[in-house]
Amino acid sequence: MTAVVYGVGTSLFGKQPERSLAMLTADAVLEALAQAGISEVEAAYVGNVFGPPGLGQSLLSGLGLAGIPVLNVENTCASGTTAFAEAVHAVNAGRYERVLALGVEQMTAVTAGAIEPDANDAEGKSGLALPSIYAMAASRYMACYGLTVEDLAGVSVKNHRNALGNPRAQYRGDYTIAQVLSSRMISDPLTLLQCCPISDGAAAAVIGAPRNIPTDIRVLSAVVRSGRLWDSRSAHVWGYELIRDTARDAFEAAALGPADVDVLEVHDAFTIAELVGTEAIGLAPLGEGAKLVSSGHTAIGGAQPVNPSGGLLSRGHPVGCTGLAQVAEIVWQLRGEAMQRQVTNARIGLVETLGGGTSGLDGNGCVVAVLST
Amino acid sequence: MTAVVYGVGTSLFGKQPERSLAMLTADAVLEALAQAGISEVEAAYVGNVFGPPGLGQSLLSGLGLAGIPVLNVENTCASGTTAFAEAVHAVNAGRYERVLALGVEQMTAVTAGAIEPDANDAEGKSGLALPSIYAMAASRYMACYGLTVEDLAGVSVKNHRNALGNPRAQYRGDYTIAQVLSSRMISDPLTLLQCCPISDGAAAAVIGAPRNIPTDIRVLSAVVRSGRLWDSRSAHVWGYELIRDTARDAFEAAALGPADVDVLEVHDAFTIAELVGTEAIGLAPLGEGAKLVSSGHTAIGGAQPVNPSGGLLSRGHPVGCTGLAQVAEIVWQLRGEAMQRQVTNARIGLVETLGGGTSGLDGNGCVVAVLST
Repeated sequence: MTAVVYGVGTSLFGKQPERSLAMLTADAVLEALAQAGISEVEAAYVGNVFGPPGLGQSLLSGLGLAGIPVLNVENTCASGTTAFAEAVHAVNAGRYERVLALGVEQMTAVTAGAIEPDANDAEGKSGLALPSIYAMAASRYMACYGLTVEDLAGVSVKNHRNALGNPRAQYRGDYTIAQVLSSRMISDPLTLLQCCPISDGAAAAVIGAPRNIPTDIRVLSAVVRSGRLWDSRSAHVWGYELIRDTARDAFEAAALGPADVDVLEVHDAFTIAELVGTEAIGLAPLGEGAKLVSSGHTAIGGAQPVNPSGGLLSRGHPVGCTGLAQVAEIVWQLRGEAMQRQVTNARIGLVETLGGGTSGLDGNGCVVAVLST
Repeated sequence: MTAVVYGVGTSLFGKQPERSLAMLTADAVLEALAQAGISEVEAAYVGNVFGPPGLGQSLLSGLGLAGIPVLNVENTCASGTTAFAEAVHAVNAGRYERVLALGVEQMTAVTAGAIEPDANDAEGKSGLALPSIYAMAASRYMACYGLTVEDLAGVSVKNHRNALGNPRAQYRGDYTIAQVLSSRMISDPLTLLQCCPISDGAAAAVIGAPRNIPTDIRVLSAVVRSGRLWDSRSAHVWGYELIRDTARDAFEAAALGPADVDVLEVHDAFTIAELVGTEAIGLAPLGEGAKLVSSGHTAIGGAQPVNPSGGLLSRGHPVGCTGLAQVAEIVWQLRGEAMQRQVTNARIGLVETLGGGTSGLDGNGCVVAVLST
């Protein structure tokens, strides 16, 4: 069986400490159920990283979805997409006909700045927060491939401009490369506008068995892998191999290749991450991801738009929610409901989420899903 | 397909802050893989409540199980059994042929006493920690059904005595009812020896497709439900209805009834919980669970032994691990490998785990699994 997405929904994204996890969840779940045209599900998978134990049961019971099996799923930044993938597989297996996948996070309750590294692991001991880890990847790319700071900034310009068409995004703006580069330095070479913000938000998808509704979106594959992101013996930067292997599996399961994809949401936690991600997915050869941006290939209107929502950089990054926010964007794009940021003739979409880095060398996961009209 | 358990393993249980999550995990996983006779699995489900993000990926990569899909699953005290159930369903669905379910927790890193209630929820606002919630259930039972403090203490006597045959248990002892009642009062009527201890530990099960090995144990059903434990409108105490409904579903899926079960591991976080649990599972009518203990029905050597391992009260309660420690005990019993505490002619076993209470009225789950030779 090929599971389909009946409907998606999200909250607004941004710093909104006055809105509880329950309120954010209600926004996302009620919208997803309404679009799906159903009021009940048989099970739920809930992606969250920093909330209290039993969170999913509590949130969903508050919406009248009590009694069902609820699985709280944690896979760092990929928690939302992991919940989505597990829900898809449960439907594919015939366990359920209607399942909810929810991602929700209130980052403002956790930190005011970058996520604190775990003092017990190698990054923590080295004093490396996530911006520094990504900055080291960017520096290595600059040394290896001649990447320039302008190349990096181009990702931020594109994604902030895309978010001008996304009323739910946390930030948006028509910046120049010079403006991106002159924003406050966070970790050289990454400036403020090249780092995803601290965000609160929720996103949901209702997944079910195929039915005769043409706007339902098919899930051709949804692959979860774990792996080592940070390996001094590797010829590649943080995350490249894990994304590459996960995308390869996802394309194989979908019987498609990178050239078939019309629109992508890629885990651009920092500008360098979109470049590494698009290369690892196979849109460009190693070291040539920046050309996808400078040529307009990944702009809305280009051949393969990446992060039309604004991505993590502009839409925001409520950690456990992000994967499902990406799924929601791709579903809207494939349904032709993405308003000013609509990609024309989008038939095949891809979501990539990379998680890890706060808990040791190996506490990492990647999810890639391929969706289709 | 009916998934089978190839092998189980556990660490020792107890306060062991000097042993890391990785060391506890290695004990459990290596034993389970050895008993299973395999060295690799295709995926892993990891139950844990209080550890850092990305825990499963980190722990399993350290054991050479890298690259596979890892799902960190949280369902409060039922996290381990939830991981087990999800692994079973993944095998039943044909997604994988060999899956690891792991539960691990280091409670000594979290608290020295009772788990702190969440200040944002109703119990927390009322100052109720878990011992007080269970004490209120015990008081209500005493008022409704004539339950005595001696009836409650009988559960503790039985389970501590059972643990004399379990070298991995945290505590054991040949106590009298008077000794149990004269131990320090924690929350009236529950004395110290009627409360599960703070524990560290890990337990694992390797689950796979049926193969031609007679010691493999069949999983006839594994049901996860969520629900409200604490409802002032209910005629029943905390947890009764959720356990009853989950057990009913598990028996229906297994095409068996309560009378068919030869040995049980029941979530005796406090003495009252075993009495409510055995009634809700259907071993005795409402209010008559204590007779199961006083008559010897649930003793080792009785018709339906409950908690031959010593249960949470004596084996210990490393929260996210507990469900898989229960599964391990039932598998050993059904394989005839439970040494001095072996239940004779055990063919059908049942595990019940109840989670919740630290995060709101509704942040709760129950898992019941039925296993068979």
